[in-house]
Amino acid sequence: MVALGVWVIGPAGNVGACTIAGWAAVRAELLPPTGLVTAAPPLSELPLAPLDDVVFGGHEIGGRSVADAVRGLVAEGILPAAVVEAAPVRAALAATAAEVCRGVTGLVGWDAFERVRGDLARFRDRHGCAHVVVLNVASTEARPDGLEQVPATPDGLFEALRGGLRLPASAIYAAAALDLGLAYVNFTPSTGSDLPALHALALARGAVHAGSDGKTGQTLIKTALAPMFAIRRLQVNSWVSHNILGNDDGRALDDPGPRAAKQHSKGASLAAILGYAPESRVGIDYVPSYGDWKVAWDRICFEGFGGAQMTLELTWRGSDTSLAAPLCIDLIRLAALAQRQGERGVLAHLAVFFKNPIGSSEHRLELQWLALIGHLLPVIGADLAVEAAP
Amino acid sequence: MVALGVWVIGPAGNVGACTIAGWAAVRAELLPPTGLVTAAPPLSELPLAPLDDVVFGGHEIGGRSVADAVRGLVAEGILPAAVVEAAPVRAALAATAAEVCRGVTGLVGWDAFERVRGDLARFRDRHGCAHVVVLNVASTEARPDGLEQVPATPDGLFEALRGGLRLPASAIYAAAALDLGLAYVNFTPSTGSDLPALHALALARGAVHAGSDGKTGQTLIKTALAPMFAIRRLQVNSWVSHNILGNDDGRALDDPGPRAAKQHSKGASLAAILGYAPESRVGIDYVPSYGDWKVAWDRICFEGFGGAQMTLELTWRGSDTSLAAPLCIDLIRLAALAQRQGERGVLAHLAVFFKNPIGSSEHRLELQWLALIGHLLPVIGADLAVEAAP
Amino acid sequence: MVALGVWVIGPAGNVGACTIAGWAAVRAELLPPTGLVTAAPPLSELPLAPLDDVVFGGHEIGGRSVADAVRGLVAEGILPAAVVEAAPVRAALAATAAEVCRGVTGLVGWDAFERVRGDLARFRDRHGCAHVVVLNVASTEARPDGLEQVPATPDGLFEALRGGLRLPASAIYAAAALDLGLAYVNFTPSTGSDLPALHALALARGAVHAGSDGKTGQTLIKTALAPMFAIRRLQVNSWVSHNILGNDDGRALDDPGPRAAKQHSKGASLAAILGYAPESRVGIDYVPSYGDWKVAWDRICFEGFGGAQMTLELTWRGSDTSLAAPLCIDLIRLAALAQRQGERGVLAHLAVFFKNPIGSSEHRLELQWLALIGHLLPVIGADLAVEAAP
Amino acid sequence: MVALGVWVIGPAGNVGACTIAGWAAVRAELLPPTGLVTAAPPLSELPLAPLDDVVFGGHEIGGRSVADAVRGLVAEGILPAAVVEAAPVRAALAATAAEVCRGVTGLVGWDAFERVRGDLARFRDRHGCAHVVVLNVASTEARPDGLEQVPATPDGLFEALRGGLRLPASAIYAAAALDLGLAYVNFTPSTGSDLPALHALALARGAVHAGSDGKTGQTLIKTALAPMFAIRRLQVNSWVSHNILGNDDGRALDDPGPRAAKQHSKGASLAAILGYAPESRVGIDYVPSYGDWKVAWDRICFEGFGGAQMTLELTWRGSDTSLAAPLCIDLIRLAALAQRQGERGVLAHLAVFFKNPIGSSEHRLELQWLALIGHLLPVIGADLAVEAAP
Repeated sequence: MVALGVWVIGPAGNVGACTIAGWAAVRAELLPPTGLVTAAPPLSELPLAPLDDVVFGGHEIGGRSVADAVRGLVAEGILPAAVVEAAPVRAALAATAAEVCRGVTGLVGWDAFERVRGDLARFRDRHGCAHVVVLNVASTEARPDGLEQVPATPDGLFEALRGGLRLPASAIYAAAALDLGLAYVNFTPSTGSDLPALHALALARGAVHAGSDGKTGQTLIKTALAPMFAIRRLQVNSWVSHNILGNDDGRALDDPGPRAAKQHSKGASLAAILGYAPESRVGIDYVPSYGDWKVAWDRICFEGFGGAQMTLELTWRGSDTSLAAPLCIDLIRLAALAQRQGERGVLAHLAVFFKNPIGSSEHRLELQWLALIGHLLPVIGADLAVEAAP
Repeated sequence: MVALGVWVIGPAGNVGACTIAGWAAVRAELLPPTGLVTAAPPLSELPLAPLDDVVFGGHEIGGRSVADAVRGLVAEGILPAAVVEAAPVRAALAATAAEVCRGVTGLVGWDAFERVRGDLARFRDRHGCAHVVVLNVASTEARPDGLEQVPATPDGLFEALRGGLRLPASAIYAAAALDLGLAYVNFTPSTGSDLPALHALALARGAVHAGSDGKTGQTLIKTALAPMFAIRRLQVNSWVSHNILGNDDGRALDDPGPRAAKQHSKGASLAAILGYAPESRVGIDYVPSYGDWKVAWDRICFEGFGGAQMTLELTWRGSDTSLAAPLCIDLIRLAALAQRQGERGVLAHLAVFFKNPIGSSEHRLELQWLALIGHLLPVIGADLAVEAAP
Repeated sequence: MVALGVWVIGPAGNVGACTIAGWAAVRAELLPPTGLVTAAPPLSELPLAPLDDVVFGGHEIGGRSVADAVRGLVAEGILPAAVVEAAPVRAALAATAAEVCRGVTGLVGWDAFERVRGDLARFRDRHGCAHVVVLNVASTEARPDGLEQVPATPDGLFEALRGGLRLPASAIYAAAALDLGLAYVNFTPSTGSDLPALHALALARGAVHAGSDGKTGQTLIKTALAPMFAIRRLQVNSWVSHNILGNDDGRALDDPGPRAAKQHSKGASLAAILGYAPESRVGIDYVPSYGDWKVAWDRICFEGFGGAQMTLELTWRGSDTSLAAPLCIDLIRLAALAQRQGERGVLAHLAVFFKNPIGSSEHRLELQWLALIGHLLPVIGADLAVEAAP
Repeated sequence: MVALGVWVIGPAGNVGACTIAGWAAVRAELLPPTGLVTAAPPLSELPLAPLDDVVFGGHEIGGRSVADAVRGLVAEGILPAAVVEAAPVRAALAATAAEVCRGVTGLVGWDAFERVRGDLARFRDRHGCAHVVVLNVASTEARPDGLEQVPATPDGLFEALRGGLRLPASAIYAAAALDLGLAYVNFTPSTGSDLPALHALALARGAVHAGSDGKTGQTLIKTALAPMFAIRRLQVNSWVSHNILGNDDGRALDDPGPRAAKQHSKGASLAAILGYAPESRVGIDYVPSYGDWKVAWDRICFEGFGGAQMTLELTWRGSDTSLAAPLCIDLIRLAALAQRQGERGVLAHLAVFFKNPIGSSEHRLELQWLALIGHLLPVIGADLAVEAAP
């Protein structure tokens, strides 16, 4: 009997591997909980599932093992060698290795759905998990045409699948998880659970879900900065953004399909915050020698009183994985909590974690944070006015 | 009988002149209200004093006229020539010129206090102003030693002044304004009204006051961005800031005394927001050829999960005057409203306008904005949840 | 009888118009010769054609007049209004207007060649020009396929044209100019004179030519900076470049064809200077609100002793037209001088002016400058060792 | 009998330690010669002293050992652990440790001179060194007042020293080295050999010397970039530079005296290259958490044709030590070669290595490089025109 099962789609990707190894390292106090909001007040006072009562598994399609991926993170300077070689981390990786099975990719149908659902059910039952969270950190998919023709009810969807409909793998994973009443978190801009039929399915099965696309870099800054222009009534004329990245995520985004999906996800917040759409570009360059390090460059032209033309330019350099992994750990724990609290459907209060939050039109970082705190403080009986300070 | 008198300390400085000319230009719809928060919903629905029922005056110490200063703003590209040469603006400048009298500077005493108070009282009475707001936009003073020995009660203060005590001119101006029950707004980091005796005087006379140091550039960005690090629990190791400016403000800050006052004011927000003090530097370079344009450069080193070392670097280029003048217009109108609403003492809800807000320890821009909205919406009977969106 | 005729292909574009108006302004001492290398020692000592013995004409395809274009430059702050409205400049623009005739564009053939040649011959004869320089500042063309199949001799080329071959307009202009023995300067990355048959034609007719693509911004910096890495044996791993521009040039480059031609031109220098090709990207964003201002952003990752990973990042903001026009004036004068000195064929010593110099494989800015000086100093009998200092 | 003795003043500083360990690592082919100009054509064809026939020693004042310093470089990621732990490097460090003796610092006199000269002579004799190069990489000294009163002849200087004159330690080291006919290289902005009496002493004793202040970062870029503005006749209005550093060098520069010496050294090149002095600032911030990494930020405002106001802004991030150590290795080898070739006095051809080259007024990087090549190619009988390409 385990309190929490975590099923990672893409456990041998950088983010997946760092989430699994990082969870073990934090639990063993080999790493400080930098970047984890659930490890500091006020959220650390929530009745979260304990870090040490957990089992990891996952679906992987590449040949790389989770341990290989973790070694790569050491080579890139993302995780210290001493942490990865410590016994608790090695034990966690070995335990996970035994729970990884072959995943699905591309456009898939009913057979894939049944197989995935079976894998998830067996994982849950084998360990007697009180709760299971399914986390999607697989490579970004291209957004297929015709998704709006997919039937909008669970029954309609299942019938269509049996009749030959094929969906992006991320949606099939989500369908399987939600059909079993598990929690599903989509950390990528892929389709995932964001189809009408899956929203309905989650409500019907009492499952929770959240997404999409972890807000880890350029969009994080954008949603912190753009409110400044709005609050001050400064007129933004153009906002040009470029990204350079070199890891597998970058390679995937070098294909036009996934790139378009990502650019769509990254572009959503600006007009929502400003109330109008300035001229805007979002470029993505895949430069392999950058490895896991990504650079975001933004150049903003704005206008002040009297028409004065002003600029703000910024460069952000960060490790993609180091920024993403703690959000994954937080999301897993908060989704499991929601499940335990009896919530169902979209977890809109988790918008602060996502570029393109399902169930929320709020993109301003600070207000998303207030929404998260406001939703959770009643759970610990605390007072928002006192505790909102990060 | 005029609804509102505005008394500017430093009307022939760039900010003073742009505030006076800009007010007239906005009133005549020669300029759009870019940068003015009181001109857009929800604050535009407040019962503010109308823009056209106002008279300007001021204390000036230099030989430059307000009209000269406005011509300088045109030469620098801050205000369009066509706007400044339009009849309504020329009329406003001419009317103001007739109301400017010689000010005081340096360390001054009881005689200066009496003279300033007389000037203010005559201005109010001559025009029958329902309300008068005194706005300090004079050059930054050095912060003198020994201010903590100044008596803490109005009576004690006045007695000490009569006995020979000398105070920075900004405090004498504030004392005169508050003693008459007028509103006082300190847009500079000078002492102004921030002495215990003057806080008490404001309460005793039913006067309102606010300050200090308009948040127009680097600190504005800082208080928008720093919450991002706090919310995400990213560890900021160092935050190095440099400023380049070329106008009179820059020349004043080239002296060690005023520079120290300014640096103190600029440094306050970071530790308040983060909850700890990273290594930090704030440099100010006076480079005359920059004119009214100021450049702020920030380089932030922070640490993520696993100890990954990341950076954010940004460069802001703006016109100091164009950023400051609309805040002055907003502050004048909001201080006059507070006076009309019967408030007294420090206007803490105006913190969003200041680097170093008197009466508030909140530095996060978005939360300062919410505090402003939350304070004012009851005046128009609106609902915060609906209207908070900028 | 005029010493120099200047025929501009694209006189109503920004660069063409600024070259024509700027020439008149410098001649009348309304503007200082900032950015002109022929106006300062040592090159000012060359026996150049005097600035006041010149007539301008050109081929234009759009409906905009040169005077309209000049007004646009004033509106964007590139040229001062007072300069443009001065009598000498207005006279020069009026005189040019009378000499502008309708040009050709796209893929064109023998008829176009004959018409253009006729226009040029009539211009030369009408004014009795001792020398004529044809300057191409028209919009960038897409580079057509199949240029390598174009016959390599002048006779072969003319026969093919009569037989129906169509070439990019820039090549037809170049053919017409060179066939008449005139000087041809290609300031764009379009094909122009860079075909084997046209090289041969220039030699046969005693004509001179130079190109291609004025080195005005990002490539200028690149060819100044890249030698630093080479000299210090620092290993450049990646060099990512982005450009933002908003003028007609930018609009033209928003089409994939011209953009590819431009990117090809911009990419040539790096490997030539370093001796190896680092990972490299060159992006171009068309953002109309930038107007004539262009921003170049470069991020260079390099490696030092012991494998330390270092970076250099730079942002250049300049007016495209203000950077290009003085180079055009210099090129016109230096091409006319070469013609007078009896040179023929490619003017390889002008490499310092071009992104992709015809006839030279030297891309290092300083060495290109030395080559220019070394070539020209004998003309004035000066000593290189003394005069090389800029 | 050893071909070359290298005496390092400050061997346990970062640069000294990296030079010693790096020399051994390159000799053993544990590191590639990135950043070394003497290891690549054409300079690699010079008859340089072989890397493996060398002995290191030095004067140190702190308690830190060279091996400790090398461990610090590993901790900071400057040198790989595997390299430092390899047998050849460990052997070299052990051999050096036996040759380090206690140095002098501050203002010192005749006793210090005699002691230092004795240490150097014994080192040379003990190992029978054919040549000895003394390299100063100790912390920057404050520049003392009154140096212009120091006697200008060797005899006058020695008499004054015996009579009680005290000089900065760096000058005493230089005097001792030159008096023995050894080569002296000053990699710092301290006084070193740049006194008239020491110039005369070098010539009298047949010694060679070079300096000062290794050109490793911001000034390196400046001297590559500034010629671009000069060549293009673009008018530089201001050039603001800031540096952030965190190592011992940074701590030393946090004192006003050494900082002024450094700023003086850094400011020399700009006016020399441009031919006029733009408004200019050079700031240095000591931020300990930066460790060995230094960041240089430059913001250049310049003016083009028609008065258009343009900017170039750049940020350089590099490891101070990794940039400096290969220059030290090159300088040692080239100074030893000069000694062997019978040169005497200032080695002006080494200007490319220094911020403030003694004996040369040329600051342009590319022309300094040409001067180096031009001076050395005759030694290998090569042809400059062919070999100048880096």
